[in-house]
Amino acid sequence: MNQNILHTPEGVRDIYGEEYARKLKLEEMIRARLKSFGYKDIQTPSFEFMDVFSKEIGTTSYRELYKFFDKDGNTLVLRPDFTPSMARCAAKYFMEMDMPIRFCYLGNTFTNTSALQGKLNEVTQMGAELIGDGSVEADAEMIAMLIQCLKSTGLEKFQVSIGQVDYFKGLCEDAGVDEETASALRENISGKNIFAVEDILKEKQIDEVHKTAFLKLTELFGVVDVLEEAKTLVGNERSLKAVDNLEKLYELLKIYGVEQYVSFDFGMLSNYQYYTGVIFKAYTYGVGDAIVKGGRYNNLLKRFGKDAPAIGFVVVIDDLMTALYSQKIAVSVSESNALIVYEKENFAQALEKAIELRENGLHVELIPKNKPQEKYMAFARQNRYSKIFFV
Amino acid sequence: MNQNILHTPEGVRDIYGEEYARKLKLEEMIRARLKSFGYKDIQTPSFEFMDVFSKEIGTTSYRELYKFFDKDGNTLVLRPDFTPSMARCAAKYFMEMDMPIRFCYLGNTFTNTSALQGKLNEVTQMGAELIGDGSVEADAEMIAMLIQCLKSTGLEKFQVSIGQVDYFKGLCEDAGVDEETASALRENISGKNIFAVEDILKEKQIDEVHKTAFLKLTELFGVVDVLEEAKTLVGNERSLKAVDNLEKLYELLKIYGVEQYVSFDFGMLSNYQYYTGVIFKAYTYGVGDAIVKGGRYNNLLKRFGKDAPAIGFVVVIDDLMTALYSQKIAVSVSESNALIVYEKENFAQALEKAIELRENGLHVELIPKNKPQEKYMAFARQNRYSKIFFV
Repeated sequence: MNQNILHTPEGVRDIYGEEYARKLKLEEMIRARLKSFGYKDIQTPSFEFMDVFSKEIGTTSYRELYKFFDKDGNTLVLRPDFTPSMARCAAKYFMEMDMPIRFCYLGNTFTNTSALQGKLNEVTQMGAELIGDGSVEADAEMIAMLIQCLKSTGLEKFQVSIGQVDYFKGLCEDAGVDEETASALRENISGKNIFAVEDILKEKQIDEVHKTAFLKLTELFGVVDVLEEAKTLVGNERSLKAVDNLEKLYELLKIYGVEQYVSFDFGMLSNYQYYTGVIFKAYTYGVGDAIVKGGRYNNLLKRFGKDAPAIGFVVVIDDLMTALYSQKIAVSVSESNALIVYEKENFAQALEKAIELRENGLHVELIPKNKPQEKYMAFARQNRYSKIFFV
Repeated sequence: MNQNILHTPEGVRDIYGEEYARKLKLEEMIRARLKSFGYKDIQTPSFEFMDVFSKEIGTTSYRELYKFFDKDGNTLVLRPDFTPSMARCAAKYFMEMDMPIRFCYLGNTFTNTSALQGKLNEVTQMGAELIGDGSVEADAEMIAMLIQCLKSTGLEKFQVSIGQVDYFKGLCEDAGVDEETASALRENISGKNIFAVEDILKEKQIDEVHKTAFLKLTELFGVVDVLEEAKTLVGNERSLKAVDNLEKLYELLKIYGVEQYVSFDFGMLSNYQYYTGVIFKAYTYGVGDAIVKGGRYNNLLKRFGKDAPAIGFVVVIDDLMTALYSQKIAVSVSESNALIVYEKENFAQALEKAIELRENGLHVELIPKNKPQEKYMAFARQNRYSKIFFV
């Protein structure tokens, strides 16, 4: 036997037993919450034409796509991200719709990274998108909903960090920074690499006022007070409107009663170039990455021929699982299982018993007896069956 | 805009709205049934090393795999079939287990066929595998369970056709037919291509008695009486044991009270070479292909280092959907949806109302008012919202 045949490829895995039962339960709980807000399930294919994803995800990620060909020679990719597919569907099926569209979905995304990074290459995500409502009330719904989703899983200690990419974009415009420089600044501000930011600003001879503001971005985060500070740093309308948006958002989150879960971070600037307004990530203990990622992407649908604002997020289910596990928060998956061990000649009675128990909601396994009774007793104990019968 | 960007690749599709709600409901109903029989959910990766699938699925199917590479240059394939993955898991995680293992799963399988064949290339399947129980009682559980699964969806007019590959294999052994000839016979008998079967038998100079039996295979199907006829055609032990197995199976299915759904077909010989005993397919109106496929595969686990008998089936969810639709069997997906249309200044009251309704189990959408009231009334009517409020 080829030993390798037992293994899954790097970065993907099997999941079974209680761990998978917990995962399914988590998905069910989050989905129930999304549904209560009127989001409707949608499922897109596991792979799409490369064009659907190529532009927004940038050239770095291009190398991280799983690419293959169909019989006609088209390049297909396993989806690395749900949002472009959702934008495509909104445009394709709701081109003329002038009411808000609410989608939710569950599925896997794929990134072809090398084993060294120790990350999963196939990740389960559950998400929601609200298309056609560009209001701050829509922003608030998204953030309040994700907080309620996380709370519904039993998680209590988490923080939603909220940024606003227009603040940075306004600053760039006002400082007369070109596209390429803006991109370099974004990358280094996100990475909190203050020395690199300083080098770029010096090289591009950015004036002192804007330089101060750009440098300040890496430390412009914290509770609501940071919004006041952000206002003092800028004079341009776009940046000021961005702060105004966050102030209104905060007021709405207070109405939802979830303001204690949020903080602000003006240095949070996503790699996903499609984000246009508010962006956010949720963090908790026991997992390095954000367990929720989302934001507003008002220009993405235009690419698919529909001009509509949109906002969405995904919960990274696998990372949420890791966090819950490390915080010892148990997702209850109790089932009532029964074992019926039968002698061949008594199968009819065993089946009758099984039918009766199943009708009462029990999960019943029938096992032909070919070992001493103690073996079955021990097995039932170890695997926490509620009942065992010998027929 | 590139028009192509709106499209999904050939053979895959988006599913949303009521259609997807019905699909999710179907999956839930079938899953509940599988769970009641004690099957435990398991999830394997969407792709695996080629070796996991390559041997059993044969060279024709090789061309129909979606193949790609990981960062280390390994060939990966999107799973074309669940059974080998399940066999791998049983061996990997339950190597020492000497009790029956029950797995169930839901996911997609992938075949890279050309558009001309008009088939879906990404198909949702829900299945179950019973590993470590080689008894006819296990065969009966599988078949009775799949019948109950189908009935739970509202389907009533369907037939489970049962074959037994050992009958054919016994015949081949007894007639001294070589591997290659057996393979050609299997293919042509499955395709009911009686002339080709006759040619092969003549060319290989098979004696009259066996020739008659082989030729008879293409018409050896029908209700239980066919079992008697099958016995008269063969003298070898393996074939007779196969018939005996089906007779016992039929008796057990009577105990389950599902015998009216089954028929027998000795000419049903699967392409999947891993099947070893009973094999079966369920057919219904309104869809060309079998909606359930399954069988016993007692040798497959050996490849993964565990010697254990096994039997399993998959329900092809997409085909079952097609059948239910064409038979006008409605899967109920009623939800209570409410729409709250609010003026910006009344958001707090609108939210209060939404919270109250959500607590009562309604799915509530909040929409900012920017159109005349009639527009929302019409929208709510068209989309069958149970309630609409203006705040």
